Amino acid sequence: MEDKAQIQEAIKTQGEVVRKLKSEKASKEQIDEEVAKLLQLKARLGGDDGKHQFVLKTAKGTRDYNPKQMAIREKVFKTIISCFKRHGAETIDTPVFELKETLTGKYGEDSKLIYDLKDQGGELLSLRYDLTVPFARYLAMNKITNIKRYHIAKVYRRDNPAMTRGRYREFYQCDFDIAGQYDGMIPDAECLKIVYEILSELNLGDFRIKVNDRRILDGMFAVCGVPDDKFRTICSTVDKLDKMSWEDVKKEMVNEKGLSEEAADQIGEYVSMQGGMDLAERLLQDQKMSQSKQACAGLSDIKLLFSYLQLFQVTDKVVFDLSLARGLDYYTGIIYEAVLTQAGVAPVPAEAQNGAPAEESVSVGSVAGGGRYDGLVGMFDPKGRKVPCVGVSIGIERIFSIMEQKAEASAEKVRTTEVQIMVASAQKNLLEERLKLVTELWNAGIKAEVMYKKNPKLLSQLQHCEESGIPLVAILGEQELKDGVVKLRVVATREEVDISRADLIGEIRRRTSEA
Amino acid sequence: MEDKAQIQEAIKTQGEVVRKLKSEKASKEQIDEEVAKLLQLKARLGGDDGKHQFVLKTAKGTRDYNPKQMAIREKVFKTIISCFKRHGAETIDTPVFELKETLTGKYGEDSKLIYDLKDQGGELLSLRYDLTVPFARYLAMNKITNIKRYHIAKVYRRDNPAMTRGRYREFYQCDFDIAGQYDGMIPDAECLKIVYEILSELNLGDFRIKVNDRRILDGMFAVCGVPDDKFRTICSTVDKLDKMSWEDVKKEMVNEKGLSEEAADQIGEYVSMQGGMDLAERLLQDQKMSQSKQACAGLSDIKLLFSYLQLFQVTDKVVFDLSLARGLDYYTGIIYEAVLTQAGVAPVPAEAQNGAPAEESVSVGSVAGGGRYDGLVGMFDPKGRKVPCVGVSIGIERIFSIMEQKAEASAEKVRTTEVQIMVASAQKNLLEERLKLVTELWNAGIKAEVMYKKNPKLLSQLQHCEESGIPLVAILGEQELKDGVVKLRVVATREEVDISRADLIGEIRRRTSEA
Repeated sequence: MEDKAQIQEAIKTQGEVVRKLKSEKASKEQIDEEVAKLLQLKARLGGDDGKHQFVLKTAKGTRDYNPKQMAIREKVFKTIISCFKRHGAETIDTPVFELKETLTGKYGEDSKLIYDLKDQGGELLSLRYDLTVPFARYLAMNKITNIKRYHIAKVYRRDNPAMTRGRYREFYQCDFDIAGQYDGMIPDAECLKIVYEILSELNLGDFRIKVNDRRILDGMFAVCGVPDDKFRTICSTVDKLDKMSWEDVKKEMVNEKGLSEEAADQIGEYVSMQGGMDLAERLLQDQKMSQSKQACAGLSDIKLLFSYLQLFQVTDKVVFDLSLARGLDYYTGIIYEAVLTQAGVAPVPAEAQNGAPAEESVSVGSVAGGGRYDGLVGMFDPKGRKVPCVGVSIGIERIFSIMEQKAEASAEKVRTTEVQIMVASAQKNLLEERLKLVTELWNAGIKAEVMYKKNPKLLSQLQHCEESGIPLVAILGEQELKDGVVKLRVVATREEVDISRADLIGEIRRRTSEA
Repeated sequence: MEDKAQIQEAIKTQGEVVRKLKSEKASKEQIDEEVAKLLQLKARLGGDDGKHQFVLKTAKGTRDYNPKQMAIREKVFKTIISCFKRHGAETIDTPVFELKETLTGKYGEDSKLIYDLKDQGGELLSLRYDLTVPFARYLAMNKITNIKRYHIAKVYRRDNPAMTRGRYREFYQCDFDIAGQYDGMIPDAECLKIVYEILSELNLGDFRIKVNDRRILDGMFAVCGVPDDKFRTICSTVDKLDKMSWEDVKKEMVNEKGLSEEAADQIGEYVSMQGGMDLAERLLQDQKMSQSKQACAGLSDIKLLFSYLQLFQVTDKVVFDLSLARGLDYYTGIIYEAVLTQAGVAPVPAEAQNGAPAEESVSVGSVAGGGRYDGLVGMFDPKGRKVPCVGVSIGIERIFSIMEQKAEASAEKVRTTEVQIMVASAQKNLLEERLKLVTELWNAGIKAEVMYKKNPKLLSQLQHCEESGIPLVAILGEQELKDGVVKLRVVATREEVDISRADLIGEIRRRTSEA
């Protein structure tokens, strides 16, 4: 047994610590940690005097989904999954944790964000950081050399959460990947077609899909005079162009990463270029760029890609953008990223499609991204056998946030159940009759509810229908029972009509079919 | 850099350790641990010489789901979710980990099976052990006093896995719960109705749903002379009756738990009783049992329950069984468990329904269970406010196992995609035409595939259809293009017919509608 007074003293001291940190504007991380200690002390006190002083919260950076959020989530998933299925994808699932060593060496600097499990004896485990590495592990382990699969599941990153912008420590990823040795750029083009279809169907406003190629970036760095060992670090700096101005990016290259001003300026010229197939053609003729074999291979593939994108009817949203870099190390070829442009006001400018530099419209963030990673599976294969892969990840959390905001703003109510009818009564002592009728309806596959009260008030039964959007009520009374009918009430119009018991099920189906 | 020779030496030594343990028949746990160390050493070596010596496996007690397993899983979920929705349930989701203290004190001895996360700074976290405690935390945190919700998600237990019997360390739970202050036994009866519907629709063979009440058990223990402080431990022993004979259970009670032989024998008489409403009536008159107020309250509720179950038309599978105890501490009233009886051969004997002891048919294990827990939410509420709850958990993993075995045994192939048609060609240089046509189909919502090859062989295109169960092929050739038609081939019959391009989409829909 702990001494209550002692704990109370400790709480007081810890409270001071927290207040002091706050007044000193200490880091959020530091304050959170001390607050957690304080709450734990309080919880101990609570446990002692039986007052249940639990800390009622979810873990930092995580959230519950309430029924309304789930209804929105379900709708979004349905749209996305039906697109994946339309394109012939299978689905797989992998465990939420992997052997720690499976994740080791895959994420570079970001490895520090991996959640490890406590060593409780046995294997060392970590929560998955994305779905791509488990996918590669799955392919190598099962010696699968071609598959088209999607995988929707939660991943975990000990990042600084920014929950208002839809950034969590536990969040969904929604991946579609094509593995296999195929002719160039056909699966790559299908991934872009899928992004196009999903973003169009979700009705999120206008969007643009930027494409580039790692080989073009590497070739560009080479011809601009970036030393070989600085490719990756300069690439991460270029990746910041969607958040930072060119001036700041250049500063970072020159001052922090030690690149010559000349090289930086040359890069600056290239990364301002946007266009389509014609830009790729122009760059293939570019005196400097054409000196890099790598860049030429990438540019030819961009050309081929655009020819397929034309057949897929999606070129109106796709831009070849030399500033697109993407963070992850494992990409080996084409990379892409979809961004929403301010809803409806900033479509892709016509010039952009003709190869001239376009005015960048305000980006509200990436909602999909991916690329080709031909080396990852080989990292898991005992003999290093490669399985070429290309894939895309839909930024589902940001999409949820947008859909939630839209639902908030709209007058239409989000239904959280699909109940078609409520079995109600206006008189007392009809519980048995209500239960009999609801059984009939359930047995016929009708979605139906009944209040769990012996004698509920008619008003409260009707109110429940209004609140949860149930369109119909079957009202039972002595007279109706005698006549072998049910009073069917339409909640929206308050219209009431007697329906014979024999016709009831057909009538409900007719009135609630969504055809 | 590590010294390669040193590691190789360490591998040799560790190899000896493993061999020694194996020859000594050490515990599996112990051997596994040393093997893991060995593999880690090997992996380090692999990393060093670039041979990628990863341990290619999933964590102990977990598994990947391949596309076939996912197809089965999807089908099972669809059946279950549509039942939950028919009964008007909403759904919620909670994070995969909770604050450690949220789980503390909820699972008794089983707490040792909880997975903790490593302390990486910040909060102490644990993986969820079930969905019920997070549900209670959710209700208390959001001050929700009534809700009918389902939640399907994975939970985590560091148990000894028995994967052939569908017991994993990561597994799905599939919970339906009704929270709220309602009139007695109506929601409880609906939970049983739901179990009945789901097990019937899944077509798993015959089943039986056992019901009992914690208050009846406690009353029974009291009138049989079990000391108060031994109720819980004697209850866990009774819980073993589905796996152990009465003789062994009695031995445990007397020898291990120190119960008098007399008390044990009296318990033995009661726990052999099975029946229906009439058994409840008989026990209400029972000289001993009727002395316990608690038991009488439970028995009256069982009577009321059965009256509702009659209205719900499910009494043919429900048995009031005094041997049912269920492990968890938090139950406060009715408890139930569904078991599959050997497929089709051992239905509930008629006598059982008339209250006479029934011959126990061979149980192949519990596939659903639940009960009433009126105190759990109060444990989270700062003021201890109670929210009565009753719920059921579907044993989905065991159901997956059974469905998988059935699929294995059946001749019918499990399809892992829903593709309706493959766009193929017999001639060379028609990639563009194939891509154009597949775009038309996708844009019309048809599920279609095309091979990612410039000039695939017709045979390999047809083989892919056979293998993955695609019913139709649209074959393009120079002649078809000239004539504005597509050759539509039915894979099963090899019948081929020319369809004009304009009619193609309608024709595909007609031939693949599942109405």
